[in-house]
Amino acid sequence: MERKVLVEVSARHVHVSKEHLDILFGKGYELTVKKNLSQPGQYAANERVTVIGPKKELKNVTILGPVRKATQVEISLTDARTIGVVAPIRESGNITASAPCKIVGPAGEVELTEGVIVAKRHIHLTPEDAEKFKVNDKEIVSVKIDTDGRSSILGDVVIRVREDFASAMHIDTDEGNAVGITGETYGTII
Amino acid sequence: MERKVLVEVSARHVHVSKEHLDILFGKGYELTVKKNLSQPGQYAANERVTVIGPKKELKNVTILGPVRKATQVEISLTDARTIGVVAPIRESGNITASAPCKIVGPAGEVELTEGVIVAKRHIHLTPEDAEKFKVNDKEIVSVKIDTDGRSSILGDVVIRVREDFASAMHIDTDEGNAVGITGETYGTII
Repeated sequence: MERKVLVEVSARHVHVSKEHLDILFGKGYELTVKKNLSQPGQYAANERVTVIGPKKELKNVTILGPVRKATQVEISLTDARTIGVVAPIRESGNITASAPCKIVGPAGEVELTEGVIVAKRHIHLTPEDAEKFKVNDKEIVSVKIDTDGRSSILGDVVIRVREDFASAMHIDTDEGNAVGITGETYGTII
Repeated sequence: MERKVLVEVSARHVHVSKEHLDILFGKGYELTVKKNLSQPGQYAANERVTVIGPKKELKNVTILGPVRKATQVEISLTDARTIGVVAPIRESGNITASAPCKIVGPAGEVELTEGVIVAKRHIHLTPEDAEKFKVNDKEIVSVKIDTDGRSSILGDVVIRVREDFASAMHIDTDEGNAVGITGETYGTII
């Protein structure tokens, strides 16, 4: 049985809390949808912010909606080095003692003491696909990705299974470039 | 037998021809050594240039000496996207119909019609290590690199054997970050 999964490259982005959205864009502001993402209900917003580290800033960083409980900044290790922070490789939502930064929006700014992470490689799966692929939630797998010139097997990939997921693997831009991904690419869970 | 090789991450850099060095730094200028590299006779120079693409520029790009026959710019795919060029994944020296850019130095500038590449993963080996590892010049291998959280097997790695090499694998910053390399790291040829 072929265990093939779509590989999507996530560009740097920010998730914001309602409280921080109020500060960054003004009291009562609501995010507007620019583009729906593969995960149901998730979208890239039209709203963008500047993420500032000790060394440099990243302008025009997309906010992903809807708002979340806690503000979280997901960047690549290349970005982390550029802005001068040491961001840990973490699963989304696990931000305790992660890197600090400042976020600036049109109406105000937020000083985050933690929240900057580099996303751990992961695969979103529907319960149906998890059963079909014979893998479980939280299992660590490797994924073989064949490209022209940069074929790779990525290990340490965490499986996440949820009813409201669409099946897709997510890697960051460093990983996407390291594997030489261009256009629609599928990986094979091995 | 363990086929272990040191993994070195190459930052973006430029090799310059004598002719272009004259234009960029002034007639008769000679590169000065900042730091010797692992490959015998190769060094990072104190001299730096700006590499300009259609979208953006990369400042303070290190020149690697000594001068070469042809000027060549080696950047990551992240860099290529940033400055707005489509650079092919190539072995060093193979620049025919690669990407164009402008290079600016303190004394002048050079308009390259080709020369910008993304380096193909490769391993420099001494003839002794090639024999010990049972691999040949130009052979394509895979290398397993274990790190904390981003373990990977990189395929499409070309072996290069030469008397004056020091044995080491070279990957670019996208690949180094994708694999999560920090500090001295060894890979295993598989």
